[in-house]
Amino acid sequence: MGFMKTLKEFQSILIPEFIRYLEKYVDSLFPQDFTELTKIYKYQLGLGDDYSKQGKRIRPFLTLMCCAGTGMEWQQALPAAVSIELIHNFSLIHDDIEDNGLMRRGKDAVWVKWGLPHGLNAGDAMFASAFKALQNLQDNVSESTALKAMELLSETCGQLTMGQFLDIDFEERKTVSVDEYLQMVNGKTAALISCSTKMGALIGEFPQEEQKKYHNFGKALGIVFQMYDDWLGMWGDLKTTGKSTTGDIVEGKKTIPIILGIKNSARFANKLKEEKISKNTAIIMAEWLREDGIEKIVIDTYTQWVENAFIYLEEMKCEGHVRNALIELTNNLLIRKK
Amino acid sequence: MGFMKTLKEFQSILIPEFIRYLEKYVDSLFPQDFTELTKIYKYQLGLGDDYSKQGKRIRPFLTLMCCAGTGMEWQQALPAAVSIELIHNFSLIHDDIEDNGLMRRGKDAVWVKWGLPHGLNAGDAMFASAFKALQNLQDNVSESTALKAMELLSETCGQLTMGQFLDIDFEERKTVSVDEYLQMVNGKTAALISCSTKMGALIGEFPQEEQKKYHNFGKALGIVFQMYDDWLGMWGDLKTTGKSTTGDIVEGKKTIPIILGIKNSARFANKLKEEKISKNTAIIMAEWLREDGIEKIVIDTYTQWVENAFIYLEEMKCEGHVRNALIELTNNLLIRKK
Repeated sequence: MGFMKTLKEFQSILIPEFIRYLEKYVDSLFPQDFTELTKIYKYQLGLGDDYSKQGKRIRPFLTLMCCAGTGMEWQQALPAAVSIELIHNFSLIHDDIEDNGLMRRGKDAVWVKWGLPHGLNAGDAMFASAFKALQNLQDNVSESTALKAMELLSETCGQLTMGQFLDIDFEERKTVSVDEYLQMVNGKTAALISCSTKMGALIGEFPQEEQKKYHNFGKALGIVFQMYDDWLGMWGDLKTTGKSTTGDIVEGKKTIPIILGIKNSARFANKLKEEKISKNTAIIMAEWLREDGIEKIVIDTYTQWVENAFIYLEEMKCEGHVRNALIELTNNLLIRKK
Repeated sequence: MGFMKTLKEFQSILIPEFIRYLEKYVDSLFPQDFTELTKIYKYQLGLGDDYSKQGKRIRPFLTLMCCAGTGMEWQQALPAAVSIELIHNFSLIHDDIEDNGLMRRGKDAVWVKWGLPHGLNAGDAMFASAFKALQNLQDNVSESTALKAMELLSETCGQLTMGQFLDIDFEERKTVSVDEYLQMVNGKTAALISCSTKMGALIGEFPQEEQKKYHNFGKALGIVFQMYDDWLGMWGDLKTTGKSTTGDIVEGKKTIPIILGIKNSARFANKLKEEKISKNTAIIMAEWLREDGIEKIVIDTYTQWVENAFIYLEEMKCEGHVRNALIELTNNLLIRKK
């Protein structure tokens, strides 16, 4: 591993190897009568898509890196990386049904392409496959560690559904506090990212105290990812992100710019109370938030969480070249354009 | 345990204790902000309902009995019994969404009462809670056994979703063979019942060879349960079962009476090809199947599977009074009315 130094070099080795392992696992899951299920899996997981469209594989990458950070071979964590990627994708399939989301990564959502019953069921299948994937850990780690990995995954799935519960609940509510928002993000996004980093440390047989630090690092990253997503949803560029800049306002989502806008911009808060908000109005409202200083608060809050990630990363016991790559990864998250 | 002899005596001790344990577990799951999730759990699990409306608790009862059959204390299997009941109920919540089922056990389906997003998500939460419940096994069994229980549960969930995949698929198909039907039932119903019986033997630390026999017994019971359900769906009494006797025909379900009817009754098969079948026509068609000898074939096939259950039960190593109660349970399954 000594020859891998930069983030890019790590990514170019670990991610293709992960994708090969994932594809092999998916191919092993179903007998002949279930080729359609295999198709749904590969479609959702982006297997066979252009490399650029496969998604960033950030969760499995973090698991493999954090395992490498302990000094163990990152390959040992491949089954766990697969299980986390499957949990992530099962939750996307179900989220799209719950949110009536028609598109995902520029393609039809699974439930749109295969119908709701098959879509919902394929999500459940993927959920089950995630737990099954962890069985392959036993070739490399002790039974005790494999059991702890199962426990970590089931705890995390519980947190995911609690975050999703709040997300659904918030859409019908007029106001949500920043604390409530963070509670939701902790479940919906940060739980699985912190599971990814902690899982690597767990498989690397680091003690609980160290695992906790890896968990904290992942949690901060998770909050950063969600806030960045929220920022894009308000001020991002549709062309480069594929995300509508107005959808969140129109759909009554409680993202961090909207929550802070309700609190700190009277004209935004008043307009939001109106029955139906057009796309053009939403564009104007996004501009108001910028003028009223909300974007600055969002970026400051966001930057604070990036700083938190750096602090946790500093505290972690971690192989030097792995830590350097993770610093690079975290540094890339800073929003520079304004 | 020596004082418990009849099936009824076992049920009157084990089931209330199971319900107490289940309720305590559910109460322990969510912090204050999630009382609505707790409400959904209790509603779906029938906790607080009249005892007669709580469902038969057949799966957890089998797990506890089969654990007792090994000579171990049945209480050791309580966490596993809870996990299986949660998996059963998570699958019912999702099935009702997939089948557009409005009612469940005489009440609104969860997704009807709470809306689809919360319903779907509560199902996912219950899925995760099932795996979490198994963590409590570790107080009583070895890490190795706890890990095997996790594996059994995740394998079973995979089979459940494969059975559900076929069930959804079959609705759009014109014909389904009896073998294909059995493959579907193996997944959709028998997988979880055979998991229930095998789980008891596993927790009782019986060797794999014995676990396999418990599995076979449960598999036969599962097929029997499904065929009985199918029989009720065609010839059952709406008043006593709460099941429409015509729904399966109208919805294009591939139940065993319908599959055998397509194969062996020309007038039934021809009528079924018509665009839309009214309720009255369906009642007449059910009568045709009776006249054309299909009910007899269904009952014969069914009875053969009850016999299979007896054979497996005979082969199992099992404490005498437990075996006797299981014989009684199996004997009660025979269809006597005609």
